[in-house]
Amino acid sequence: MRLSELSRRSGVSVATVKYYLREGLLAPGTPVTARQAEYDDEHLRRLRLIRALLTVGGMTISQARDVLAVADDPAFGRHERLGIAQYMLPPQVAPPEKDDPQQPEWDATHRQLRDVLADLGWRVNDEAPAINSLTRAVVTLRALGYAFPLDFVRQYALAMHPIAEVELGVIEGYPVLEEAIEASVAYTMLNEPILLALRRLAHEDVSARLHDSGPVRDTDPGGLSSS
Amino acid sequence: MRLSELSRRSGVSVATVKYYLREGLLAPGTPVTARQAEYDDEHLRRLRLIRALLTVGGMTISQARDVLAVADDPAFGRHERLGIAQYMLPPQVAPPEKDDPQQPEWDATHRQLRDVLADLGWRVNDEAPAINSLTRAVVTLRALGYAFPLDFVRQYALAMHPIAEVELGVIEGYPVLEEAIEASVAYTMLNEPILLALRRLAHEDVSARLHDSGPVRDTDPGGLSSS
Repeated sequence: MRLSELSRRSGVSVATVKYYLREGLLAPGTPVTARQAEYDDEHLRRLRLIRALLTVGGMTISQARDVLAVADDPAFGRHERLGIAQYMLPPQVAPPEKDDPQQPEWDATHRQLRDVLADLGWRVNDEAPAINSLTRAVVTLRALGYAFPLDFVRQYALAMHPIAEVELGVIEGYPVLEEAIEASVAYTMLNEPILLALRRLAHEDVSARLHDSGPVRDTDPGGLSSS
Repeated sequence: MRLSELSRRSGVSVATVKYYLREGLLAPGTPVTARQAEYDDEHLRRLRLIRALLTVGGMTISQARDVLAVADDPAFGRHERLGIAQYMLPPQVAPPEKDDPQQPEWDATHRQLRDVLADLGWRVNDEAPAINSLTRAVVTLRALGYAFPLDFVRQYALAMHPIAEVELGVIEGYPVLEEAIEASVAYTMLNEPILLALRRLAHEDVSARLHDSGPVRDTDPGGLSSS
């Protein structure tokens, strides 16, 4: 297909496709004339993946280039090729600097959390970015004076595992690696608000049962405050 | 206690406490002299709650005032007094305008999601803000061409329910209403990154087992892309 059709079928503008070509994210097409090239389904798949990394995954061009480099490197297996994309998704939480007063607390919490995961037998890298996110959240909660026992972490982890199994099942259902990476990025990012919304709805249901109440009344808060 | 001690014990600056007094979020203290007033533990609790609503909960002064109005109104039960705070937390997703081309898709999805919750027997309000967040996320996924069967919603909902039961147990452990509202806001908001980080770690573990691999290698993406 020509560039115009590639653009139409991918939903990515011609100017943007040319930008990805210049940045080396997308391989050049097969030259047909001095000014035209032919693109195939592989270009289309790659373009969809690039779009997912940049728009859904919020990555920079440079991060997307790194993900694609790993995806294209036969030295890596499927686990690593999918994993590197997840590792680059936001939020990227940096540990505190060496002279930060929060650093000892951070280090202790990071170690505690790694121990919880190790006790569960989880095969995760000690340097996984998500352990930094987890550490930041627990340190913040505790700094504000809220208790957060490690047993909560364990219970949350156990509740998340079956969800991850279902999700990985969907992602592994894509035989073509690029489609699997695209699906992994899309479902990781876009399902987050779904999970969080369902947690809030579950809170409402549990509270309604606990207090044997109906759904929260459809109050008019503006009206309430002015009454 | 005097204003300075109230400030010290709550961690809220004197200027900010005065601002809350002017805005009517905090009740005036008992006058001692023409220029001084006495504050008690109830002021301290209220101040901590205000801080949680505004900083952790990201509410505006006006939203916080609405939450406090419901908390103080004996016409409402505990379920509603806790629920109104949750209803005002971000994200607040508005349905599309009547002339938005996405509106029919939105309406159909909103109805499907309400049906899923009804089938589960969940006691939630059809107007719950979290149903809007859920609808927005599902509409976005589908608009990008990703399948999102309603059975996923059901599975996610079932996985979230036991988590919500544990969390409500903690919140209901606070006998004083203001502390319960504060805990509800804090745990709802601050535990979200914890859940999401554990989901990503669970993905890594499930993938490692599936591919019988170790943890994702601690690659140096910068080095990879330049090799």
